[in-house]
Amino acid sequence: MPVNLSAPDPATLLPVPGVRLGVTMAGVRKANRRDLTVIALDEGAAVAGVFTTNRFCAAPVQVCREHLAAGAAVRALVINTGNANAGTGADGLSRARQTCEALAGLIGCEPQQVLPFSTGVIMETLPVDRIAAGLPGALAALQAANWGEAAAGIMTTDTLPKAASRRITIGGVPVTLTGISKGAGMIRPNMATMLGFVATDANIAPELLQPLVKEAADASFNRITIDGDTSTNDCFLLIASRKAPHAEITSLDSADAKTLREALISLSQELAQAIVRDGEGATKFIAITIDGGRDEAECKLAAYAIAHSPLVKTAFFASDPNLGRILAAVGYAGIGDLDQSLIDLDLDDVAVVRQGGRLPAYREEDGQRVMKQSEITIRVGLNRGSASATVWTCDLSHDYVTINADYRS
Amino acid sequence: MPVNLSAPDPATLLPVPGVRLGVTMAGVRKANRRDLTVIALDEGAAVAGVFTTNRFCAAPVQVCREHLAAGAAVRALVINTGNANAGTGADGLSRARQTCEALAGLIGCEPQQVLPFSTGVIMETLPVDRIAAGLPGALAALQAANWGEAAAGIMTTDTLPKAASRRITIGGVPVTLTGISKGAGMIRPNMATMLGFVATDANIAPELLQPLVKEAADASFNRITIDGDTSTNDCFLLIASRKAPHAEITSLDSADAKTLREALISLSQELAQAIVRDGEGATKFIAITIDGGRDEAECKLAAYAIAHSPLVKTAFFASDPNLGRILAAVGYAGIGDLDQSLIDLDLDDVAVVRQGGRLPAYREEDGQRVMKQSEITIRVGLNRGSASATVWTCDLSHDYVTINADYRS
Repeated sequence: MPVNLSAPDPATLLPVPGVRLGVTMAGVRKANRRDLTVIALDEGAAVAGVFTTNRFCAAPVQVCREHLAAGAAVRALVINTGNANAGTGADGLSRARQTCEALAGLIGCEPQQVLPFSTGVIMETLPVDRIAAGLPGALAALQAANWGEAAAGIMTTDTLPKAASRRITIGGVPVTLTGISKGAGMIRPNMATMLGFVATDANIAPELLQPLVKEAADASFNRITIDGDTSTNDCFLLIASRKAPHAEITSLDSADAKTLREALISLSQELAQAIVRDGEGATKFIAITIDGGRDEAECKLAAYAIAHSPLVKTAFFASDPNLGRILAAVGYAGIGDLDQSLIDLDLDDVAVVRQGGRLPAYREEDGQRVMKQSEITIRVGLNRGSASATVWTCDLSHDYVTINADYRS
Repeated sequence: MPVNLSAPDPATLLPVPGVRLGVTMAGVRKANRRDLTVIALDEGAAVAGVFTTNRFCAAPVQVCREHLAAGAAVRALVINTGNANAGTGADGLSRARQTCEALAGLIGCEPQQVLPFSTGVIMETLPVDRIAAGLPGALAALQAANWGEAAAGIMTTDTLPKAASRRITIGGVPVTLTGISKGAGMIRPNMATMLGFVATDANIAPELLQPLVKEAADASFNRITIDGDTSTNDCFLLIASRKAPHAEITSLDSADAKTLREALISLSQELAQAIVRDGEGATKFIAITIDGGRDEAECKLAAYAIAHSPLVKTAFFASDPNLGRILAAVGYAGIGDLDQSLIDLDLDDVAVVRQGGRLPAYREEDGQRVMKQSEITIRVGLNRGSASATVWTCDLSHDYVTINADYRS
């Protein structure tokens, strides 16, 4: 059961002028599944993305990077589920390129103007023929109002589609941002991946998109973890159709850019947090904030050490205020000169540790009360600087083991 | 159920001249548990140790380091279970020191000549009074033949005691090495820790012990992982009573030193692997070898990324040859310039991946056959150098979650 997450209300998903989506059943891995999504972009759209840092990245990730680097205007995205086209060597690269060629042929553009995305089973051969055969159906279904369908179309073992919108005003005109995401582990069982797509009609200079998508990813998708496994296929893409009739945003320092950035980050965080809420076997949504660090990097180190500790995660599953596990994780996070005698720990509003020792006033029943909640905030104070960082994670439950141990059987 | 591990046969545990052990019930946390062990060393013994790198290290670890640094001859070790004396601030340090003072008073030495070790619950106050009251009983029980009792006395939630011996010949005389270890996770549920003690009567120059214990730890206890959590209390100690009547070993390059080193590493590996075999919820013992690396450090990075991946570990639990998970872990291990098109993967004698892609000849039933074994070797070839490294781990099962989620309740 997802943690405080429900399917998006279709009425709240706002079309983005210049962006149309179509979903169809191509039988990539199983019949009768809506497993092929095309997102078509009108002329003039600009696209930027961030991709997995996994060195064993999948073929479509490599092709996406090539096509974006080539600089030709992107006209379409093609996303299949059921097969990740990862661990497939040179043949996989060739098949990812064939997918782009097939779609480019149908819509009349160059293959470099198509970006491919694959999620699903690793180390299986991508059935390009079935994908190519499905493309006309996806194209026939293209509609600007199809965000909900696309959110469902990119799901693998997600239990719920993930989508949201924001509306802001720039230069007196309404501007829309709508996004979708998928994923329920950094890698799904043997399904790879987290994907996120956000489109806006904001009229923004194309060269500003890359820093913007990087900043949004760092504040959202790069702050979540379920099991610490970085997928071979992860991607977060920002599309600007640039259709909104306001003066072009040409600087990230402008007030308009700030408005856009805030909405983008808020939307990205909602989409990223939805992945954690739908995390494999998750029963709790946990925000971990480290403050008082010398820099953000060491705050992130400590936050991820806590977020990845199986011992911390099982304690949360059990609602057991076994908080020494959190201190131990901070201790091995890799902050070389950390002074344990300065450390504070709070669980929501409950003060647990000051100066590295348990507070005499701390009562286990207070910790227990917080641990039973479905939404929990951990705060660790390092008391050695003024930097801070927050990451979001979930607990580690029996269902996580069941899902991951039994998925393929 | 431990993986291919049984309790040591007492007859195989050889006394080490100059080393006596006594165990008693002190009621540290629960009544009627043999929870206090004293190891007494004859005059002339030398001791060296390696300790947790956790910055939130427990009070006894800090006191051990101080006492070893002070350089006074160690005459006794005092080890309690039930309470880790970690996360206890300045008061915890004071209590660790009081434990040493109490034992020093009883045996007539300086407090600096006593090393304290505590394992058990974190963030609870160490009951020094009960430990002090138990010391006379432990001293009364001192015997050279008590290694089996001590192995049981330092257990917390281990399911089996862990002890072994080696006998070698140096300078024509028999030399003994006997050791014990405990631990079943890098941190036990809320019990902290892994401990290892090896004693030998080898006559070795005291200044050689530190490099020797470091080398043995790096080849054994530093090569195991159950859940990736580095405890606040981990310690591995090497004791040389120096009673054996052979010429003193004064160089690590000598043939005698090599004989001793080989026996020490073999014994340490057996004791370390016993911890993995008794790992929380373990059903499989997995050796992970990375070869073809540029240096040992990057081989270890890749090996630990595999060993710590919850997805890899749950796949082993399920006997599911979901080997893309292993490739993905190698990919995110942090080897910045890794070329995936060079990577090989073998599962025991089954070749799975060559040059980053699945071998056409690989059949899933062959992978399945290996995955069903209780002992499995993973080999990953990076094909970029000649370095290699091996680590040992276990799978992640439902019982791991049960043990860690339910332990304190």
